[in-house]
Amino acid sequence: MAGKATQAKPPTPPPRPAAHGDDTVITALALAPADLTPAIQAYFDKCMEKLGFVPNVLKAYAFDMQKLEAFIAMYNDLMLAPSGLTKLEREMIAVAVSAENRCYYCLTAHGAAVRGLSGDPVLGELMVMNYRAARLDRRQRAMLDFAVKLTTAPHAVEDADRQALRDGGFSDRDIWDIAAVAGFFNMSNRVAAATDMRPNTVYHGQGRG
Amino acid sequence: MAGKATQAKPPTPPPRPAAHGDDTVITALALAPADLTPAIQAYFDKCMEKLGFVPNVLKAYAFDMQKLEAFIAMYNDLMLAPSGLTKLEREMIAVAVSAENRCYYCLTAHGAAVRGLSGDPVLGELMVMNYRAARLDRRQRAMLDFAVKLTTAPHAVEDADRQALRDGGFSDRDIWDIAAVAGFFNMSNRVAAATDMRPNTVYHGQGRG
Amino acid sequence: MAGKATQAKPPTPPPRPAAHGDDTVITALALAPADLTPAIQAYFDKCMEKLGFVPNVLKAYAFDMQKLEAFIAMYNDLMLAPSGLTKLEREMIAVAVSAENRCYYCLTAHGAAVRGLSGDPVLGELMVMNYRAARLDRRQRAMLDFAVKLTTAPHAVEDADRQALRDGGFSDRDIWDIAAVAGFFNMSNRVAAATDMRPNTVYHGQGRG
Amino acid sequence: MAGKATQAKPPTPPPRPAAHGDDTVITALALAPADLTPAIQAYFDKCMEKLGFVPNVLKAYAFDMQKLEAFIAMYNDLMLAPSGLTKLEREMIAVAVSAENRCYYCLTAHGAAVRGLSGDPVLGELMVMNYRAARLDRRQRAMLDFAVKLTTAPHAVEDADRQALRDGGFSDRDIWDIAAVAGFFNMSNRVAAATDMRPNTVYHGQGRG
Amino acid sequence: MAGKATQAKPPTPPPRPAAHGDDTVITALALAPADLTPAIQAYFDKCMEKLGFVPNVLKAYAFDMQKLEAFIAMYNDLMLAPSGLTKLEREMIAVAVSAENRCYYCLTAHGAAVRGLSGDPVLGELMVMNYRAARLDRRQRAMLDFAVKLTTAPHAVEDADRQALRDGGFSDRDIWDIAAVAGFFNMSNRVAAATDMRPNTVYHGQGRG
Amino acid sequence: MAGKATQAKPPTPPPRPAAHGDDTVITALALAPADLTPAIQAYFDKCMEKLGFVPNVLKAYAFDMQKLEAFIAMYNDLMLAPSGLTKLEREMIAVAVSAENRCYYCLTAHGAAVRGLSGDPVLGELMVMNYRAARLDRRQRAMLDFAVKLTTAPHAVEDADRQALRDGGFSDRDIWDIAAVAGFFNMSNRVAAATDMRPNTVYHGQGRG
Repeated sequence: MAGKATQAKPPTPPPRPAAHGDDTVITALALAPADLTPAIQAYFDKCMEKLGFVPNVLKAYAFDMQKLEAFIAMYNDLMLAPSGLTKLEREMIAVAVSAENRCYYCLTAHGAAVRGLSGDPVLGELMVMNYRAARLDRRQRAMLDFAVKLTTAPHAVEDADRQALRDGGFSDRDIWDIAAVAGFFNMSNRVAAATDMRPNTVYHGQGRG
Repeated sequence: MAGKATQAKPPTPPPRPAAHGDDTVITALALAPADLTPAIQAYFDKCMEKLGFVPNVLKAYAFDMQKLEAFIAMYNDLMLAPSGLTKLEREMIAVAVSAENRCYYCLTAHGAAVRGLSGDPVLGELMVMNYRAARLDRRQRAMLDFAVKLTTAPHAVEDADRQALRDGGFSDRDIWDIAAVAGFFNMSNRVAAATDMRPNTVYHGQGRG
Repeated sequence: MAGKATQAKPPTPPPRPAAHGDDTVITALALAPADLTPAIQAYFDKCMEKLGFVPNVLKAYAFDMQKLEAFIAMYNDLMLAPSGLTKLEREMIAVAVSAENRCYYCLTAHGAAVRGLSGDPVLGELMVMNYRAARLDRRQRAMLDFAVKLTTAPHAVEDADRQALRDGGFSDRDIWDIAAVAGFFNMSNRVAAATDMRPNTVYHGQGRG
Repeated sequence: MAGKATQAKPPTPPPRPAAHGDDTVITALALAPADLTPAIQAYFDKCMEKLGFVPNVLKAYAFDMQKLEAFIAMYNDLMLAPSGLTKLEREMIAVAVSAENRCYYCLTAHGAAVRGLSGDPVLGELMVMNYRAARLDRRQRAMLDFAVKLTTAPHAVEDADRQALRDGGFSDRDIWDIAAVAGFFNMSNRVAAATDMRPNTVYHGQGRG
Repeated sequence: MAGKATQAKPPTPPPRPAAHGDDTVITALALAPADLTPAIQAYFDKCMEKLGFVPNVLKAYAFDMQKLEAFIAMYNDLMLAPSGLTKLEREMIAVAVSAENRCYYCLTAHGAAVRGLSGDPVLGELMVMNYRAARLDRRQRAMLDFAVKLTTAPHAVEDADRQALRDGGFSDRDIWDIAAVAGFFNMSNRVAAATDMRPNTVYHGQGRG
Repeated sequence: MAGKATQAKPPTPPPRPAAHGDDTVITALALAPADLTPAIQAYFDKCMEKLGFVPNVLKAYAFDMQKLEAFIAMYNDLMLAPSGLTKLEREMIAVAVSAENRCYYCLTAHGAAVRGLSGDPVLGELMVMNYRAARLDRRQRAMLDFAVKLTTAPHAVEDADRQALRDGGFSDRDIWDIAAVAGFFNMSNRVAAATDMRPNTVYHGQGRG
């Protein structure tokens, strides 16, 4: 498939995702979609049924089923599996990390998730703009301070940082989950930035009410 | 399992990976190992057979089989599946990214991989110390420049950066792979930093000859 | 008045703006409101009539009529007086600058203005999240690049930066206006940060349609 | 007037302030001076009488009387009106902030003011070079630490920073004034940088004795 | 001698260089002066004769004659020996580098040297405040750009940076000298910062003209 | 000699140190070697006898005997003369500082020294990769924290930083030595970066056992 993409490139300019509102071009890379496996087709159908759309990040990975499956497996484990962190807390980490990296895709999609899960539109804005301005309890503030330090200065994270989480009431398993979610969005932010990935337009209006 | 880890913590101080040379404590988190699934057991057996050891990162994830499986699936796809990038090139990205984040675990394990795959011990050192000092061809230099910019300033990556890769001979599929490998190590570097993950001592001596 | 504020402080803790949705405490400083002058009272009345509320920044300055008048005079000249820049462009600069400084107050109030003036809710989000991800014409991109460099590295602005604006179609008078608006928000962002100024809740929902 | 400036530009190269010692070209922008209003003329006359010169920043704004009046009103309120901060302290903030932004105009003009108001030439140098090397009492050190953090990391200013000022003896009204002066010079530094504004040569020799 | 210093410490607090104007305590370290060797005594005598004072940096090193001799030898070779760079240019590098590191000692002493050697008091101020605001010819601008990049981002200096110097008219030997002077002040700035070294008060008034 | 170097340049391209393994071209500057003085010849002979090679940094300086002698005098005093710091500790500082500046030459040569003096290959790697990941006692950690802060933020070093060293057991003389070694490598890192200096290949294999 890499070969095909390469052959297709010279005659046509590289794709440029159009202005927002046009969800047809999702990344700046010319990657022909692969045939969906039955499992992935079922997963996309479930997205349509539950969300009304397939998140563009999934379409972006859909040029290769193996990559898409690995992404979905890791994403769903991190964001949806049982954890000492609530789903809202995991989304708050996602947005606070994405704000450091200024990732348009993830701020849009996961900002909507914070608004939706919390029922608090302003909390989503605060995570995008400056989580330090939010009125958080000690636990959630410690959680985001750790996630953001891990994002901006990973080399400087030491025992005292882990202890601050334990003091905030987190178990060692929770610390893993905070790290894993923060790490995951440091990955996704960069895949999105590298490919100029564009979020589904629908996210912008979600959870505003 | 989160519950168990929490209960185990109060009576004993948090673990501290010992000085190098002692591979018994791998992270600073108290996470009891889960039972290996047959598939994972087989994978660990294969590691022992081919490498002579199980990489510590796998043991670190082994408190939860679902997380370990997701990690292995993504890792193996990125680093071992067919790609326009050679395995050595993918390892070079891994080390150049890890050098920006100053990740002891990844620099050690993947520095060894660069030495081994290239048969050039000095190339591994250069990736760790400063890739700009290496004598790279235009293609590999463009590849690492992109991976490092994506690491340090993801918000500033734009069309010109992707074009520089195309000018260096990369297809759009290759660009995805560069981004995905760079993104993955931005994740792994942070999981390692958050948990004080320690590399297997054996890596240090590999590929020195 | 400073004396009064000081006397009022010891018995009561410093004010803390409540969670969003409560617009009664606007900053973290205990500053008793002064009597409004007739001119300011008329201005506040006009705000109520046209906007339906008095912007909190005006209430924050209302402990001292001289300071409030100076602020309003400068603000209105910069943002509303005739200029080679449209009002929308001036608001775009306001938000792009405030995003660098991560100012919760200004991102909220002026993000709403970008949404309202443009009729494009997503454009407001893009200015908040990462203006580089927006699809801007050459003129507006040059304008924001200049405003952001002036924000993050003012010491490094030189002739070439001014020339880039001229090449983008701006007159020297326009360059002044870009600089003045960018400078003004570098001031306001800091007054807001220093005082923990909170935006009127109503802004969050404006221009979302 | 913007139109005039634009028309004047093509035939002649943009102005470049000459080497120091030549006070005839003040900024790099071609902006024709407007007619002075009587109030501004009187103000300039007072400058000549008291200082022996009109500060170049005023001449730079003199292409538009409304902008100049707004600037003067805010400047005089901040730097000269009654405050819990002495005039020297306000000038010390001006210079410490301008040192972070490396603003040639403001360091020159306000460095002279610190030397003049303090009667201590070295104090002016210390504010320019590194305020941390000065021997300041706790109050003034807290004041400058706040002003400088507000300059370099406004998003990270929180309750503890305000409390450090209260502990240093400042009232909430004083905190406002510190913030407002620091904010103002973050604005002025950028207007000066954007326009390559040059200070009156006379400043360099003032207060050296 | 280290032993003596250690024994002397407990009963008395560590020295703190007094406010400027008091040249008796030069650093914050309690290091008893060693007996001057005849060569060093002669050198100090020459300083008194030619300058009217012994520069404090020499007194700071005078706890150990071997260290002092090595410092003087390197300093005199770099700053005074024949070179393609003029003495003024070497002092300009000294100040531009020291401005990046914000070294109070070196900015004071070498700012005076720039003023003195150039006969241009403002040039000294410009080197301290922001060398980019000075009106330099292409050669000197290239020289300072290289010295400053070498100071702030040494890992990123590459062939293109050396070529810019060659294009500016510098020989390879000149490039060495630029690098060596820039390097030397990166050392001296740090010894001064580590010890809170205070410049002779007399420097402040020199060359003010 | 500067003249000669200049004349030699036009007809031939500037030297480019070859890939590692070729020790014939040591820097990117065309500087003809000077005749060795008898003292330097004896020193080089001693290097050959004790090390089996002459360190490339000495060959790089050998275009000028006066510069080479000054370098050797300062280097040997700092790294080999009696001090409260062990030779290993001085090499640890050298590597931790060089890691901040990402200096290929110094990381290679002094990384080898840490491995050799400590008999601990991993300690050398840790100093190169991230000294915070090493298991250091309080004294050595304080020493490296000071050296690294002095490298990255010299302007912010104050009394509290010196006190942390005293609390870690260091005398004032020791503090000088820490500062002087850290300062020296901030110089050498930059001379090496400016000239693209290449380490002797033999270093890479030293002390690996």
